[in-house]
Amino acid sequence: MKTFKEINPSPRTLMTPGPVEADPRVLKAMSSHILGQFDPEFTDLMAETQEMARILFQTENKQTYCVDTTSRGGLEAVLTGAICPGDKVLIPAFGRFGYLLSEILERCGADITLLEREWGTVFDPEEIEEELKKGGYKAVACIHGETSTSMMQPMEELGKICKKYDALLIVDTVATMGGVDIPVDKWGIDGCIAGTQKCISAPSGSALITYNDKISKIVNERKKVEKGIRTSSDIDGTLPQIPSNYLDIAQLEDYWSPRHLNHHTEATSMQYAVHEALRCIMLEGLQERFARHALNDKALCAGLQAMGLKIFGDLKHKMPCVTAICIPEGIDGPTLRGQALRDFGIEMATSFGPLDGKIIRIGNMGYSSQKRNILFTLGAIEAVLIDNGVKVPAGEAVAAALQVYKNA
Amino acid sequence: MKTFKEINPSPRTLMTPGPVEADPRVLKAMSSHILGQFDPEFTDLMAETQEMARILFQTENKQTYCVDTTSRGGLEAVLTGAICPGDKVLIPAFGRFGYLLSEILERCGADITLLEREWGTVFDPEEIEEELKKGGYKAVACIHGETSTSMMQPMEELGKICKKYDALLIVDTVATMGGVDIPVDKWGIDGCIAGTQKCISAPSGSALITYNDKISKIVNERKKVEKGIRTSSDIDGTLPQIPSNYLDIAQLEDYWSPRHLNHHTEATSMQYAVHEALRCIMLEGLQERFARHALNDKALCAGLQAMGLKIFGDLKHKMPCVTAICIPEGIDGPTLRGQALRDFGIEMATSFGPLDGKIIRIGNMGYSSQKRNILFTLGAIEAVLIDNGVKVPAGEAVAAALQVYKNA
Repeated sequence: MKTFKEINPSPRTLMTPGPVEADPRVLKAMSSHILGQFDPEFTDLMAETQEMARILFQTENKQTYCVDTTSRGGLEAVLTGAICPGDKVLIPAFGRFGYLLSEILERCGADITLLEREWGTVFDPEEIEEELKKGGYKAVACIHGETSTSMMQPMEELGKICKKYDALLIVDTVATMGGVDIPVDKWGIDGCIAGTQKCISAPSGSALITYNDKISKIVNERKKVEKGIRTSSDIDGTLPQIPSNYLDIAQLEDYWSPRHLNHHTEATSMQYAVHEALRCIMLEGLQERFARHALNDKALCAGLQAMGLKIFGDLKHKMPCVTAICIPEGIDGPTLRGQALRDFGIEMATSFGPLDGKIIRIGNMGYSSQKRNILFTLGAIEAVLIDNGVKVPAGEAVAAALQVYKNA
Repeated sequence: MKTFKEINPSPRTLMTPGPVEADPRVLKAMSSHILGQFDPEFTDLMAETQEMARILFQTENKQTYCVDTTSRGGLEAVLTGAICPGDKVLIPAFGRFGYLLSEILERCGADITLLEREWGTVFDPEEIEEELKKGGYKAVACIHGETSTSMMQPMEELGKICKKYDALLIVDTVATMGGVDIPVDKWGIDGCIAGTQKCISAPSGSALITYNDKISKIVNERKKVEKGIRTSSDIDGTLPQIPSNYLDIAQLEDYWSPRHLNHHTEATSMQYAVHEALRCIMLEGLQERFARHALNDKALCAGLQAMGLKIFGDLKHKMPCVTAICIPEGIDGPTLRGQALRDFGIEMATSFGPLDGKIIRIGNMGYSSQKRNILFTLGAIEAVLIDNGVKVPAGEAVAAALQVYKNA
């Protein structure tokens, strides 16, 4: 039989828009031994995770907890829980992940209107209001940070508009939560989804979600307690049941409530990871963390521009945690990314759809968002470009970034 | 702000039917730093996981991979991928998890026939054949090891019967895979689902699945590549699309294929865990591992019986990795389990539905299935019973178990 080796990954600096480097304290927490899912010590940890997640989301929502899936599953859980078949939903899509929202909602029978925009731009809130004026919309589902284009949709205005037209606002903050200020309640976001493997800096494998009483009321009207554990006091709701058992947030609410009604077996080590990642965020402080991401973004962009590279998209709306560069003449994406990985152990990301082959995406997220990583990455990009005969001024990029840090 | 503490679980011996203790080598692997999901080092690990999983399942199925959910999500993925709305499915249910299969399949519009049996028994294959004779069944979905009752349904015969009536056989081996011999191909199982947190001895948070070409053909007829990443060569299937995007095994097949078409972001650390857990199983050897579980089960049962406790259910069909004891007079379940946890750090499990308050379930799974744990658990049960005034012969249980080990 073939001999399989133990896990021993090569050194890597992960400058993609996810997964990024997990905080070493998170990795350490994951090596703790397993607790039973109904052990009071474990359910206490779950309650603490909820408490810290509320601080991160800046929300009072009782319904704030984890789904044992990657981010995409959390998205599906909230969307298919809040939206019933036939509900009219407006999706302003400005990149690949906007389309994902429609892929998910189509399958649950929602009546979708897709607004599209050129990749590299965001929506003027008025464009969205124009559509909402037509009436009948139950919800607006929108991406906050669209990693496929590096654009970030302004949300505060959108929250007000949705309230005016009595539409729920459900926002995917998978790529921004933990790196950018997102006051969920203040902005009027009704449902919000975050991923662990980006600015929260834990491994992929859990999704953090929060939603308010408006959504919870709908969800509870769709609830049905499972045969085998239901009691005579469990009454079925009147709205159509949620299509998935695993992603059924009516059941997940019960699981995460003090009743801890059995559903899945909570992913113990991922729960440890999320708890520790949130604890690290609390220790750093939210505003301090956002400022760190912003500063590293500023240094990165200064360095890239000093090298003569063009940053893609509408710079007024660029995510501070993702930067897309236009691939310069004289090199292609796979060569640039491939050599950065092979020679420097630095990973950057490719792109999708209309941007495939045109841009490379550089992440600046969570534990990966560090001064030394920014400097190392700029130096590596410069060296690879020069090694491939692309003319760039040597030394300028790192110097420009250093200057940003000195002036900070 | 409240100060949150780092993860530091109290010592525990997990003698429940899951989650159980993860192998320390698995926990160590999880603390390795993150690799990007398309890093060739990482995709090589994924391929090795598939290779080892085929050995574990004893199958040649190409489609053998992980779903980034707990076991329940893997079940839903295979069931809702193989079964289309309107398909007739027979579910022989002999405990809570049989009902779960129907809960999952009801939501995707399957036409379900539920055969029910008293909890604590299994089906005679002839009973199932009688029903299949009526014709029209697309599939039989069945639990192998029903942890709610500790019963194990014989499968070899069932595979032959299903083939005879041209019905797919989809089996939940979440509680048995890795602890009991389950030759998937030899037994004629078309789709099979395993969980990581039981006899495979990794944390909860990943599901291992395998299915053959018969199911894969159906799945591919339901495929639709997502907008934003689809190319002109991607053609939509003719059967109804799978209801969930996250659990869509048509997309997961592409993700786990050499094409590695983007879907979710693979849960890196859980993937490390599964890889290492499978590697530990390969090192131990399948038959050696099954023999270990069987021997520890024999010792546990001998000890319990020597104490005068009654083992629940049809002993001919008891799972070797779960034993249910009837709660003796003079004590109740919460007292027995509570004191075992508080004073001895041993966790045992409660029960569901008609067995609630009547039995306690003791697991014997994976890394928890160890001689010392069996002896410790027997000693603790005896002490708690005596401490609560229940008459049991002191010292007999451990002595009987030791004798089993001596004779082995």
